[in-house]
Amino acid sequence: MAENEKYMKRALELARQASEQDEVPIGAVVVDSLTGEIVAEAHNESEHGSEATAHAELLAMQKACQKLKSKRLWNMDLYVTLEPCTMCAAAISFMRIKTLYFGAVDVKGGAVVSGVRFYEQSTCHHKPEVFQGLYAEECGEMLKKFFRIKRDKKS
Amino acid sequence: MAENEKYMKRALELARQASEQDEVPIGAVVVDSLTGEIVAEAHNESEHGSEATAHAELLAMQKACQKLKSKRLWNMDLYVTLEPCTMCAAAISFMRIKTLYFGAVDVKGGAVVSGVRFYEQSTCHHKPEVFQGLYAEECGEMLKKFFRIKRDKKS
Repeated sequence: MAENEKYMKRALELARQASEQDEVPIGAVVVDSLTGEIVAEAHNESEHGSEATAHAELLAMQKACQKLKSKRLWNMDLYVTLEPCTMCAAAISFMRIKTLYFGAVDVKGGAVVSGVRFYEQSTCHHKPEVFQGLYAEECGEMLKKFFRIKRDKKS
Repeated sequence: MAENEKYMKRALELARQASEQDEVPIGAVVVDSLTGEIVAEAHNESEHGSEATAHAELLAMQKACQKLKSKRLWNMDLYVTLEPCTMCAAAISFMRIKTLYFGAVDVKGGAVVSGVRFYEQSTCHHKPEVFQGLYAEECGEMLKKFFRIKRDKKS
C-alpha cells in the first residue's frame, strides 16, 4: 500500500469512529512529510462538541500546532476524507500545510475544487499542493450513509 | 453614542491592547442582540499565540460558545475592527451570527466585500446582515501604524 493510502485509511477510520458517536463522519490526519510520522489526528466534533466550527481538519491542525509548539505547520501534509470547506481551506493556507490530500469532493460546501476555489484566488497567500480522490468512494459513501440514516430516522 | 458605536469602540480598545503585546491590532466583540450584553471579546493572538489561525473574531466566537454552552450563536452580533478573512467569514456563517459589523475594509485578505465575497456564494448556507465602516479610519490607521513600525524596525 502506498504511504499516502495508509494515511487516508487512517483518516477513514477516524471518520468511522465519528459516525459511531453520531458525529458527521469526516476524519483528518496531519503527517510530518519529512519523517512520515502522524503528528495529530481528529474527527468532526461539530454536532456534540462545543462549536459548530469543530471540523476534523481544523481540530487536527490545532492539535499539531500544540504538539509541535509551532503556530504554523511547515513541511506537514494533511489528509482529510472530504474536500475542505471555505473556513478550513483558508485555515490550511494560514497553517502553511505543504500538501493537502482529500478524498471525496464536496460540491455543496467545498472550497478547493468546488465553491470559491480558494487556492486560485488573489486573497490566498499560500497554496498547498493538492491531491484529490484517494478512497473517494469510501469517503463519500460513509457520509451519504450517515445522512441517509438521519433522514430515515426523521421520516 | 449609538449602541453599535459603543461596541466597535470596545473592539478598537481590544485592538489597541493587541498592539501593545506586539500582536496584529484587530479586536472583536460578540454581543447578545436581545439584551445588549457583551458575551465575549478577544484580540488577535496569531503572532504569539499557539496557532496562526488565532484571529480575533474566531477566538471571540469560540469563547462565546463556551460561555453560552452552545455550538451556534443565534441572535448574536459580531463587531470586528477589520473585514473578516476567508476563514473567519465562513466561521461566522457556521456560527449563525445575526449581524456582522466591521470597521476597515481588507482588500488583500478580506472575504466579505473583498476577495471571494463569501456571503454571495452558493456554498454559503447562512448569510449574516452586514454593516461596514464603523470607525473605519481608526481601525485601518491602527493596523497601518503597526505594520509601518514593524517595517521601520527591519530596515
